[in-house]
Amino acid sequence: MSGSHISLDPWFDSYADRSSGLSASEVRSLFAVASRPEVVSLAGGMPYVRAIPDTLMKQTLNRVIDERGPEALQYGSGQGHPELREQIVDIMALEGIRARPDDIVVTTGSQHGLDLIARLFVNPGDVVIAEAPSYVGAMGVFRSYEADVRHVEMDEDGIIPERLTEAISAARAEGKPIKMIYLIPNFHNPAGVTLSGARRMEIIDIAQSEGILIVEDNPYGLLWFDHAPPPAMRAASDEGIIYLGSFSKTFGPGLRVGWVVAPHGIREKLVLANEAAVLSPSSFSQLVVTEYFQHSDWVAQIDTFRGVYQERRDAMVAALAHELPGVHHTMPTGGFYLWLTLPAGLDSKEMLPRAVTELVAYTPGTAFYADDRGTENLRLAFCYPTPEDIKEGVSRLAKVIREEVELIETFEPSRDTSPIDTHVESPPPNLS
Amino acid sequence: MSGSHISLDPWFDSYADRSSGLSASEVRSLFAVASRPEVVSLAGGMPYVRAIPDTLMKQTLNRVIDERGPEALQYGSGQGHPELREQIVDIMALEGIRARPDDIVVTTGSQHGLDLIARLFVNPGDVVIAEAPSYVGAMGVFRSYEADVRHVEMDEDGIIPERLTEAISAARAEGKPIKMIYLIPNFHNPAGVTLSGARRMEIIDIAQSEGILIVEDNPYGLLWFDHAPPPAMRAASDEGIIYLGSFSKTFGPGLRVGWVVAPHGIREKLVLANEAAVLSPSSFSQLVVTEYFQHSDWVAQIDTFRGVYQERRDAMVAALAHELPGVHHTMPTGGFYLWLTLPAGLDSKEMLPRAVTELVAYTPGTAFYADDRGTENLRLAFCYPTPEDIKEGVSRLAKVIREEVELIETFEPSRDTSPIDTHVESPPPNLS
Repeated sequence: MSGSHISLDPWFDSYADRSSGLSASEVRSLFAVASRPEVVSLAGGMPYVRAIPDTLMKQTLNRVIDERGPEALQYGSGQGHPELREQIVDIMALEGIRARPDDIVVTTGSQHGLDLIARLFVNPGDVVIAEAPSYVGAMGVFRSYEADVRHVEMDEDGIIPERLTEAISAARAEGKPIKMIYLIPNFHNPAGVTLSGARRMEIIDIAQSEGILIVEDNPYGLLWFDHAPPPAMRAASDEGIIYLGSFSKTFGPGLRVGWVVAPHGIREKLVLANEAAVLSPSSFSQLVVTEYFQHSDWVAQIDTFRGVYQERRDAMVAALAHELPGVHHTMPTGGFYLWLTLPAGLDSKEMLPRAVTELVAYTPGTAFYADDRGTENLRLAFCYPTPEDIKEGVSRLAKVIREEVELIETFEPSRDTSPIDTHVESPPPNLS
Repeated sequence: MSGSHISLDPWFDSYADRSSGLSASEVRSLFAVASRPEVVSLAGGMPYVRAIPDTLMKQTLNRVIDERGPEALQYGSGQGHPELREQIVDIMALEGIRARPDDIVVTTGSQHGLDLIARLFVNPGDVVIAEAPSYVGAMGVFRSYEADVRHVEMDEDGIIPERLTEAISAARAEGKPIKMIYLIPNFHNPAGVTLSGARRMEIIDIAQSEGILIVEDNPYGLLWFDHAPPPAMRAASDEGIIYLGSFSKTFGPGLRVGWVVAPHGIREKLVLANEAAVLSPSSFSQLVVTEYFQHSDWVAQIDTFRGVYQERRDAMVAALAHELPGVHHTMPTGGFYLWLTLPAGLDSKEMLPRAVTELVAYTPGTAFYADDRGTENLRLAFCYPTPEDIKEGVSRLAKVIREEVELIETFEPSRDTSPIDTHVESPPPNLS
């Protein structure tokens, strides 16, 4: 081993190049903080799984054992259980998607679907285009395959087509391969906005004319509040779009069951990659999901989830209007999150320890960028705490923000620059 | 897209370099064949999960819901559930291993543990040393990270230390980094042999003096028949050894729960890699395993498994002695497999379609090599079929082999070379 650097890990020099991208995410360290009961956590995106009745779970599990116990305990197929894939076809039809069971690969949560896609396509240095901001877990995947992530600005209607075209041209001018455009069109995590129907078509046209894959990540699509979002992008085209679906928000993330819909050639390779990684996704989890969706009134259950999350969004929006009337945030019409822009001069990452001291947690905007943007933003999750806790949490957060603003107003003359001025080159029209 | 080659997949030119290593394994296509009910499959390594009583499964599942339903449905920690990791410490103590819960990372089956280890360490072209033959699923993982796999000969006592030293020297002479030595010391898959206690120490000494990691894969260690195997290699040293464990053979593979024990610095990186790949392993599966091992007489259950598999090994060995008295095979003292050497001139891969026509399936030896060896061998699995089916399957296989030998004896003068002569440069002392 070389003595060129000091490390307590004797295997430091043995790691692969891709391992240098592995670092503890800000969300991860927050999970530890947020688990203290006295902290109101507006940080984690944990669904409200208590909405699923215990009796229903017991019926489902007993049926799995009665009807196919040995199958549940055994190895399965690398593509996923055929019955589950048929049900997934029906579920996706609710969002306008026409697919066949053979187009689907079941994965260990949609996170592993994304991991397998990146593994299949990304050579070190390849460009992946993502929204600005984008999902922290996707940033982790892309980093671990050494992708060059380029963020494209969004506004209240989602990613801006002109900016996408510019980003593609810029990467092409550098001679860099662009492997995919990764998008969360519905109730964006973390931005809380939804890509408009017209823009979905524009984005598909751009991607198809440029020959670039779209990866459409849609964990929240069925969790709309006032009205359904536009049809999925995969509903408009079955070529050049890889679709990621998940049972984490319509059933429970603890089962780790998601899926990928992909064009035929890609789907074949995904099955092989899935087999190389895990042999087969869990038969047990898949059969629990299968029995649940076959025998429960899952559409009514999703209605229940919608009601729970809408009430919590309302509580958060009302609390923000009351406590921080001048502060901008997005207005989610579904999903789990809203995106807040701090008053000028505040830094969401620097402010976090003070927020935790005041017993409230959030996720700093920096977690959602592969570059150093996001200091002026934070993500608030309304999915898990009760409306009362949300009200209390926003009140605590507002106190921290007000004190930070006062501090800046007192000392501003001595500050050279604000983080916003130095870090954000081109603030998006509405989201900054 | 370039027009330099013809492909039906329009995304053919977009795949990452590592994807070229993805190909359908021979075991995979065999699973399809073996699922036909009229075929006796001696191919797949499916454990006999029917040995676990339905009533016990129902009690376990109802307890999970009663006592921690919401936890089972929720996201968990990237390292795995703390209670399960405590139980894993107790289970490993049966094989002489002393570890702390914090040394352990729970993974989506031990397959995913191996995938994460390769991801962490293997740059394209790095050398991984494996036994000759080695586990087909490990070959798939190493191929998918573009490793240069070097097989080292075994005999009835496992990998041969002198050959290991030679392989290390050869790779060093080429200036190639050697990232790990991947071993299955107990009841080897596919070879059916066990690494002797003395050799375990020799191998550890070699690896430590050369500064090379050992990856000890031990899914079968508790499934011994006549006497326990020597203590695990991890029992002798807690530095420089990564240990892989699995619940697939002591409970059920359908749950996809395995684990990795690793030195501290590696363990930290494994947790991050696990989070990047799947966020967290399934809480549901982990709590089912936890409740099962806390409240069932799992030691007695393992005794039951031992009895089942020993009876099946005995049936296979007796049938082989009766049907194919001159044919060499290894004598497993535990686990699922034995390794058979065909009479000279026969090719296990070429012979497979004729075997399937005779309604018996096996795995050709070629599946267990990263190079082109293995044509003269085949793996027979005695874990899944009943003793009666094993007897019938071996009888059908013997018929095919006898007919092949007759064919060769009739036409041999017209054959230029036999596959054995052309492909096997250095047959191992006892295994070929």
